[in-house]
Amino acid sequence: MAEENRVPVTVIGLGMMGSALASAYLKAGHPTTVWNRSADKAAALAGQGAIQAGDIKDAVAASDVLVVCVVDYTALRTILEPVQSSLAGKVIVNLTSGLPADARTTAEWAKSVGARYLDGYIMTVPPAVGLPQTLLFYGGSQEVFTEFEPTLKVLGGNSIFLGEDPGVAALYDLSLLGILWSSLSSALHGFALLASEGIPAAALAPFIESWITHVVQPSIAGAAQQVDAKQYATSISTVGLNATGLVKMVEASEGQGIRPDLMVPIRDLLAERAASGHGDEALASLIEVIKKG
Amino acid sequence: MAEENRVPVTVIGLGMMGSALASAYLKAGHPTTVWNRSADKAAALAGQGAIQAGDIKDAVAASDVLVVCVVDYTALRTILEPVQSSLAGKVIVNLTSGLPADARTTAEWAKSVGARYLDGYIMTVPPAVGLPQTLLFYGGSQEVFTEFEPTLKVLGGNSIFLGEDPGVAALYDLSLLGILWSSLSSALHGFALLASEGIPAAALAPFIESWITHVVQPSIAGAAQQVDAKQYATSISTVGLNATGLVKMVEASEGQGIRPDLMVPIRDLLAERAASGHGDEALASLIEVIKKG
Repeated sequence: MAEENRVPVTVIGLGMMGSALASAYLKAGHPTTVWNRSADKAAALAGQGAIQAGDIKDAVAASDVLVVCVVDYTALRTILEPVQSSLAGKVIVNLTSGLPADARTTAEWAKSVGARYLDGYIMTVPPAVGLPQTLLFYGGSQEVFTEFEPTLKVLGGNSIFLGEDPGVAALYDLSLLGILWSSLSSALHGFALLASEGIPAAALAPFIESWITHVVQPSIAGAAQQVDAKQYATSISTVGLNATGLVKMVEASEGQGIRPDLMVPIRDLLAERAASGHGDEALASLIEVIKKG
Repeated sequence: MAEENRVPVTVIGLGMMGSALASAYLKAGHPTTVWNRSADKAAALAGQGAIQAGDIKDAVAASDVLVVCVVDYTALRTILEPVQSSLAGKVIVNLTSGLPADARTTAEWAKSVGARYLDGYIMTVPPAVGLPQTLLFYGGSQEVFTEFEPTLKVLGGNSIFLGEDPGVAALYDLSLLGILWSSLSSALHGFALLASEGIPAAALAPFIESWITHVVQPSIAGAAQQVDAKQYATSISTVGLNATGLVKMVEASEGQGIRPDLMVPIRDLLAERAASGHGDEALASLIEVIKKG
């Protein structure tokens, strides 16, 4: 490995994800400095070849690229503000989770101390860090993304720059996580319905797989087009029809002795959309209710 | 076509779905009688070769197999009770949507008038009726399903008998519909998040497709195994971690000026599970809260 060509990086925050990031850089031959508030996690990575910084000052001094993965944006500020006079000219790649507003505030702060800033989201679990197909979203400095693209792609080959808004990656992250949370919890709702009759989840699982591929995926793809066009005509599955279906779903859940909580807001949003004269529109038109915050 | 071998069927209820059912039987060469409360819909099918019954008595007399697809189970009873003395020995294939309890009550009633009963759910839209891959769930009389399997499969090649409980098909239907409703509405939530920054749904759609295939589908499959085993150990994505994520999701939604309604019950159920000492378990353990109706 031509390790002399690799950009030195410092990884700050060595939880499960931060440790995976540092390991990926070590495997790719990058000179890798690590730092964590508690030192024991750094010691494990030192065994893999990482340079263990004695303090945050040394950690920042060691590399021009600082990859940060801590519990939240407040933790990032708490860690970096004491050394902010040494951040001028540094690149902060912040892979910490939070809100779009946090990302924007943190980008402003980074700018104020002379650092360049990318806000990224790792769309996978720690064991998948570093794979070619692993997806990361970035927003912030296009210049930094372009300049350091090979270094960023060490963490996941599918690293996507979304735009100059530092909050955009958080938005994409939340959008996909929302789908995961909803899909998974509603599958659990389905498993609970079946369990109420003594039927195992394994009996439904193969149907779910096919259902998601052949019904859910095309429905979402179609909804995306309808939403962008604001064209909600349908001859198949209307708001009104599904509003009735959701009423039945809540009744059936209660009838089977399980909690309908997950289905209640879908029922109520559909009823609201139908009541405002949009019962004949496609389900995608529900977005117009969601948008009215 | 050896039409003389085809089982005569009567289709009762000629809405969009009922008409598709009748068309499928006509295309497959079954002698097909049709009846609807309003006669205009029957006339259209008569043009395709259907026998238009003059009244429900004639409709029932015409075939041993009665395929019923009406607005709800009450409508079925309203239509068939006046002719219930002629239902002895008939097969009722009820493809009307409703609750498991409705299906069970209707099966009891069918038995009381001497009819055999199958309760089915068509897991697709009317244009896909009759395709080899089209999925229908059935519960009720195993004997009827076996005896009439080729006739039933005219409506969809993937016709599945789930069990003798007449309510079981409704349960499977609701379980899959819940996943569709949740996935689609949460995708709309994501589109609304992006729209709040002027980003079109089309920008997220390709990521959703990959996300569902590579993250959502395996998560649900894994959860099914954990649920059946009641083993919720994880080293990756805990209830506690996701409970925090959902708090952020609700905050971010409000911060972007959109309604967080769809995410609120997921946040609250996760918080409840975490508060009861299960914060270190896998997300699948949320089912234990849902089950407590």
